[in-house]
Amino acid sequence: MNYCSQCGASVRFEIPAGDNRPRHICTACDFIHYQNPKIVAGCLPVYEDKVLLCKRAIEPRNGYWTLPAGFMENGESTRDAAMRETREEANARVSNLELYTVTSLVPVSQVQMIYKADLDDLNFSAGDETTDVGLFSEDEIPWDDLAFQTIRNALKFYFADRKTGKYPTRHVDLNAPPGTYIEAPPKE
Amino acid sequence: MNYCSQCGASVRFEIPAGDNRPRHICTACDFIHYQNPKIVAGCLPVYEDKVLLCKRAIEPRNGYWTLPAGFMENGESTRDAAMRETREEANARVSNLELYTVTSLVPVSQVQMIYKADLDDLNFSAGDETTDVGLFSEDEIPWDDLAFQTIRNALKFYFADRKTGKYPTRHVDLNAPPGTYIEAPPKE
Repeated sequence: MNYCSQCGASVRFEIPAGDNRPRHICTACDFIHYQNPKIVAGCLPVYEDKVLLCKRAIEPRNGYWTLPAGFMENGESTRDAAMRETREEANARVSNLELYTVTSLVPVSQVQMIYKADLDDLNFSAGDETTDVGLFSEDEIPWDDLAFQTIRNALKFYFADRKTGKYPTRHVDLNAPPGTYIEAPPKE
Repeated sequence: MNYCSQCGASVRFEIPAGDNRPRHICTACDFIHYQNPKIVAGCLPVYEDKVLLCKRAIEPRNGYWTLPAGFMENGESTRDAAMRETREEANARVSNLELYTVTSLVPVSQVQMIYKADLDDLNFSAGDETTDVGLFSEDEIPWDDLAFQTIRNALKFYFADRKTGKYPTRHVDLNAPPGTYIEAPPKE
């Protein structure tokens, strides 16, 4: 950030009075520009014994498999965002959303929220940011080709919890530097 | 937003190619300025049969009681943010945080996350944005003078769940216009 989005003057980077961390402050109008973490919301859509995955058409992790998810927008709930992303990325409709994983990705200042959901029907197809969409049983999941650690975690949790039929909200903090956790590791 | 924070040129407000909603786009460098919801994180600190509340010294809802909470910062987890806000607003230390409420406040584009936590000791006091801090049993809670609907919800959930000893994560969407839900209603 170099310029004030309110008045166009240059900004300085220093700790405002009464604050305890540096912010971008306008040198002309004194507007303080706060920067805060973003929320990524998505679904783990289930159909019979299978889970819907999308093959990414965009970076990062182009060509790897993921759950449908993306940045939450202003003016929607996290649940709305998860349903919208599922519709946009997989042209799929889901119901009965239950908050399932909440993950802080500390180094990239994101919080990811994944909902377990019922896939309504088999009318799905690849959206603009996706090259392929499919349903996978536990044995068929492309464990070596998953895009992100958070997706791997959600799938591991799901197949473990399915044995008990109880799906408590899972809460994980990922503190490792980017690169060591963003990419899912190969199958152990 | 009137000016590009990258280069200082004016911005236009229109739908970028491949997107489906209007964004602020720089007329010179084409940088797209996304605006996304913010996370508010806080604690419901418990000591024996009492809950810690803070009396707000700032707007909105100056003079009303709340749980210690505030905007999550970049580079921390939601749990870190909840502990930091509890330290800053009540000079209090907490342990054993459990994610307890997740509320989308749709009209103000915020997601609030409250953790149930154990208050470590009685060494607490009012921080800069607080005029008073106290411990309240269920009967003593100032139900008519709570700052926000989300705080009222968290307290109601807590005292109900305490009867069973089980505290599942509670997930609420608040869609009503600002003013009708931001302020907690008087006691029913």
